[in-house]
Amino acid sequence: MQLTAVEGVRIGRGMSVDELVRELGGCAFGAGRLARAVDIYEEMLREETTKFLGIAGALVPAGMRNVIAQMVRERYVDVVVTTGANLVHDIIEALGDHHYKIEESAASDTVDDAWLRGQGVDRIYDVVVHDEAFAKLEDFVRGVFDKLDCSGDKRYSIRELTKAIGENLSDRNSILRSAVDSEVPIFCPAIADSMIGLHAWIYKQTEALNVDAFADMKELIDIFCEAKRTGAIILGGGVPKNFIFQTALVAPTREEGREGFDYAIQITTDTPENGGLSGATLDEAKSWGKIGVKAEAVTLYSDVTIALPIIIAALQTRVG
Amino acid sequence: MQLTAVEGVRIGRGMSVDELVRELGGCAFGAGRLARAVDIYEEMLREETTKFLGIAGALVPAGMRNVIAQMVRERYVDVVVTTGANLVHDIIEALGDHHYKIEESAASDTVDDAWLRGQGVDRIYDVVVHDEAFAKLEDFVRGVFDKLDCSGDKRYSIRELTKAIGENLSDRNSILRSAVDSEVPIFCPAIADSMIGLHAWIYKQTEALNVDAFADMKELIDIFCEAKRTGAIILGGGVPKNFIFQTALVAPTREEGREGFDYAIQITTDTPENGGLSGATLDEAKSWGKIGVKAEAVTLYSDVTIALPIIIAALQTRVG
Amino acid sequence: MQLTAVEGVRIGRGMSVDELVRELGGCAFGAGRLARAVDIYEEMLREETTKFLGIAGALVPAGMRNVIAQMVRERYVDVVVTTGANLVHDIIEALGDHHYKIEESAASDTVDDAWLRGQGVDRIYDVVVHDEAFAKLEDFVRGVFDKLDCSGDKRYSIRELTKAIGENLSDRNSILRSAVDSEVPIFCPAIADSMIGLHAWIYKQTEALNVDAFADMKELIDIFCEAKRTGAIILGGGVPKNFIFQTALVAPTREEGREGFDYAIQITTDTPENGGLSGATLDEAKSWGKIGVKAEAVTLYSDVTIALPIIIAALQTRVG
Amino acid sequence: MQLTAVEGVRIGRGMSVDELVRELGGCAFGAGRLARAVDIYEEMLREETTKFLGIAGALVPAGMRNVIAQMVRERYVDVVVTTGANLVHDIIEALGDHHYKIEESAASDTVDDAWLRGQGVDRIYDVVVHDEAFAKLEDFVRGVFDKLDCSGDKRYSIRELTKAIGENLSDRNSILRSAVDSEVPIFCPAIADSMIGLHAWIYKQTEALNVDAFADMKELIDIFCEAKRTGAIILGGGVPKNFIFQTALVAPTREEGREGFDYAIQITTDTPENGGLSGATLDEAKSWGKIGVKAEAVTLYSDVTIALPIIIAALQTRVG
Repeated sequence: MQLTAVEGVRIGRGMSVDELVRELGGCAFGAGRLARAVDIYEEMLREETTKFLGIAGALVPAGMRNVIAQMVRERYVDVVVTTGANLVHDIIEALGDHHYKIEESAASDTVDDAWLRGQGVDRIYDVVVHDEAFAKLEDFVRGVFDKLDCSGDKRYSIRELTKAIGENLSDRNSILRSAVDSEVPIFCPAIADSMIGLHAWIYKQTEALNVDAFADMKELIDIFCEAKRTGAIILGGGVPKNFIFQTALVAPTREEGREGFDYAIQITTDTPENGGLSGATLDEAKSWGKIGVKAEAVTLYSDVTIALPIIIAALQTRVG
Repeated sequence: MQLTAVEGVRIGRGMSVDELVRELGGCAFGAGRLARAVDIYEEMLREETTKFLGIAGALVPAGMRNVIAQMVRERYVDVVVTTGANLVHDIIEALGDHHYKIEESAASDTVDDAWLRGQGVDRIYDVVVHDEAFAKLEDFVRGVFDKLDCSGDKRYSIRELTKAIGENLSDRNSILRSAVDSEVPIFCPAIADSMIGLHAWIYKQTEALNVDAFADMKELIDIFCEAKRTGAIILGGGVPKNFIFQTALVAPTREEGREGFDYAIQITTDTPENGGLSGATLDEAKSWGKIGVKAEAVTLYSDVTIALPIIIAALQTRVG
Repeated sequence: MQLTAVEGVRIGRGMSVDELVRELGGCAFGAGRLARAVDIYEEMLREETTKFLGIAGALVPAGMRNVIAQMVRERYVDVVVTTGANLVHDIIEALGDHHYKIEESAASDTVDDAWLRGQGVDRIYDVVVHDEAFAKLEDFVRGVFDKLDCSGDKRYSIRELTKAIGENLSDRNSILRSAVDSEVPIFCPAIADSMIGLHAWIYKQTEALNVDAFADMKELIDIFCEAKRTGAIILGGGVPKNFIFQTALVAPTREEGREGFDYAIQITTDTPENGGLSGATLDEAKSWGKIGVKAEAVTLYSDVTIALPIIIAALQTRVG
Repeated sequence: MQLTAVEGVRIGRGMSVDELVRELGGCAFGAGRLARAVDIYEEMLREETTKFLGIAGALVPAGMRNVIAQMVRERYVDVVVTTGANLVHDIIEALGDHHYKIEESAASDTVDDAWLRGQGVDRIYDVVVHDEAFAKLEDFVRGVFDKLDCSGDKRYSIRELTKAIGENLSDRNSILRSAVDSEVPIFCPAIADSMIGLHAWIYKQTEALNVDAFADMKELIDIFCEAKRTGAIILGGGVPKNFIFQTALVAPTREEGREGFDYAIQITTDTPENGGLSGATLDEAKSWGKIGVKAEAVTLYSDVTIALPIIIAALQTRVG
């Protein structure tokens, strides 16, 4: 057990985000973990590391779309695994619609959802979207499906589908578009569990659309196996967390006895006490071989919308 | 705003679970919500209601397999949507393996996961599984795949796959087997995100296995649309929660202006403050039309492994 | 590391609370911890153990008053340490007023607190109290102060003050009254932080009222030191948790190297990740010597209003 | 309900903390709330506002001592209400001892607290303190008690006691010393529930030490009543939160119908669902008149050690 004296944070006028993070590095609790997350991510960027980003939670509606698209464009990440919802909301913004924040001191206490229902407005915590945005989404998604070649035996992987969607978007701030431009694959194993899935079902009632449930895994596992070093940045748990980590389970044991991810950063508000995977510790992942026994790893218990911008701002300063 | 005087719980010797729940009915906070969950579930069972069960979290490893299988066999539920992990662990027990509990006062504090790794033991909070159980799982799952007819154009839905797995199990306490026997469909939209998915990928390297990512939705939506009344029992959030609720989004508006689920019970330790769907309130679901504006609905903030057995025990007494 | 095969819970019609708890004993996660809490408490009751109960959180407004009073009357506990608020609400009910539950499916989402303010109604989550109840409280508390003898040098301890309050109540279901009848001392180190404290301040503006901030500790520590064995039941953390545990820090080391509490049960929804004491693990308490290195101890992550009635119901059956 | 389009955060190289916070201002969820907390605090500092700071949780051991001392010295706060533990740890550092951080990726998983006990080391999550630091504390505190004049009728208030302690410290980074220098009163209603309380008890065994449990409230309420505008900054709930807010309950209604705090910022990881006060919403506080119906108020769900340095860094830039 290595001990270091806690050094209290010192705040100065006009200090940069990175200067603040370095001060937090002397602290314990969440402050110290935030600083450690930046250090680990910096090492991932400086070493030749293939970086897997897991995205769960409504990060796009909350305003994290730009920063994630930036991470993709600047290759802070090499592979993305996400929920369908974040793709849906990325498309909505790419098509020119917006998410709206409810301006109230304690929004969740005073919203009348029955009334919202009458207004054609759908709520995500303190954010709302209008029904029309989803109507526009439907037209767009069907247009993408129309362009696919589903004749004969052709079966698409989900990753090919997300790529096709991205190719039909022109918004540079779109995560899906940025992924196409930067050749970053986007995986979405539970895509059926989203508006894209719903529209795929409706489309399939009358047209051919063949998407294979298991086709993605080969590409993902190949990327893992070919990587020199591997890192996972897990935002919020859920299916993306498990899908990234399980990749390590079937990867042939690599040379020198290395197994599992070499680096892991987990940012979540879930804690281990309910036994679910989202809040499971990274130590637990070591028992499975999902992350290496000697991996550099940290769990940061924080709202991602607070922690992620800080981390990326500090890294921009450190490594550009 | 309707107010009722809180009546303190009174504890008697030898009281039954249902008697205790009725006492809790006079209380507020979690106690009152637990009692209300039982009342709502009872009404679902007495009225002609199609009941959708969402299962997330490692409930089978924790010991909830029997009670869920019982719910399926006795038609306390009519449709199941689950994570792949619970199916994997159901199979493991059906094949004769076990999960093991770490007997320590505060297990999570003193476990050495690197050591566990060396022992070939995988940890899920205070539960472990041996690697051999997964080896046996692989043999079994490949055997099921072998029996599928993947010649020609045949593409399986995931629900057909879960049914085929259940048909190959003989353990009456298995959720998958019980579902076959009781004609309860099991959906698992993110099945790729599980050991079953990993073995499907390996199998597909050399054999034909065509599972369609979107084929399930027609069956699920048809069930919803044909139901006289609909109820959702959501254990733990995640993909199952959203997949069940989104069914209501595309269901054609039913007669008399009804829309969304008529009943909803959510048992979770996630809270709304991080903005994620798992912890979103059922009121928020009303703004989307996922549950009806006048639905009978309650969120119970509790470890499912505590709340679910109590609820089912009380219902057994009330409705058998 | 001792491993036991998880045995799934089996639910039967009309089963008693204790039968259910015994079934949960084969499970992991919260279910297993709940069963272990009952086992530890049962051992405390069967062995000659001095039992310290810590009460934080608004348990009385939620409906836990009867069960806590019962625990006091039947000597399931020998010492109580509580927040001032629970005493205030115990008095309110003893004086004939009530707490009221807001009957709504998801109360916290739709309450308009500004409107409540106008109605003279004060909210505690899904419970409300009327302003008049506090007016009646004031008259009563001042009456108690009037009867104290604050002439000369006399300084009361807080424990003497809570006893004086209890002596002036006649409601058998009152915690304070039950404590007087059963000779169970009630400590309340932060009593200034309550309506009792506010009224004490107002009273002191014109009358003599001398309550010593530190006088209680001798009695509490003497009880600890004279005990054959000691147990702590911590409901919800806060000041009561620390006040009980710090008692062990100054107790002279007992014979045979024993130190710290011999038994500890902690029921809380706080988790360790924020570093605060309320969510700190019982293992952490071992490093301080607050609980013994070999103590029987369990933390149960649960809403107390769910867990406590179950535990007491099971114990009633086991030990009466 | 006022709606504003969410604007995604844009990250630039070398950006300052305040620039980042302004970007977060376009976001929702925690990011938006963090930005709003800074705006509200800025308004408090620009308007003539008496600012009450509540401190719970082990903020000093985690490294927040400097920033809190800075807030006191620069009169970002005018009144402090704290737990005893933070005072204890402030003294420990002022006497030259240190807190030590356990350097591990996931510290809580692998610490052996029984072993720590043998080493004379006490743990607070991922921080430890040596027993010797507490021995030095005892000598110091007894020295302070010796200097008090407890002859005759003299009874100290707790606030006078904290002042006396501060006067005996010379470390400029001490919160207690800074409070003396800046004439900021420090209240600690539950001081008995701390090492200071323990040593007070031991001291009282042989010496006179009269500290009145209720004497503080007059000073606190007078400060509230004389304030032009009032603001509360609540770090972590607990007794300090309630003690600050209850002040508003007995303040005579001020001119123009104003009642309750005018501003409130709450930073916590507690959520409302367990019904306890620490996680109670600020809206709930409005029903009591603790904060004004039209107060500018925000709850930020965050580890304080992350949020507080960001807020103060942004404010330093904005108002110096």
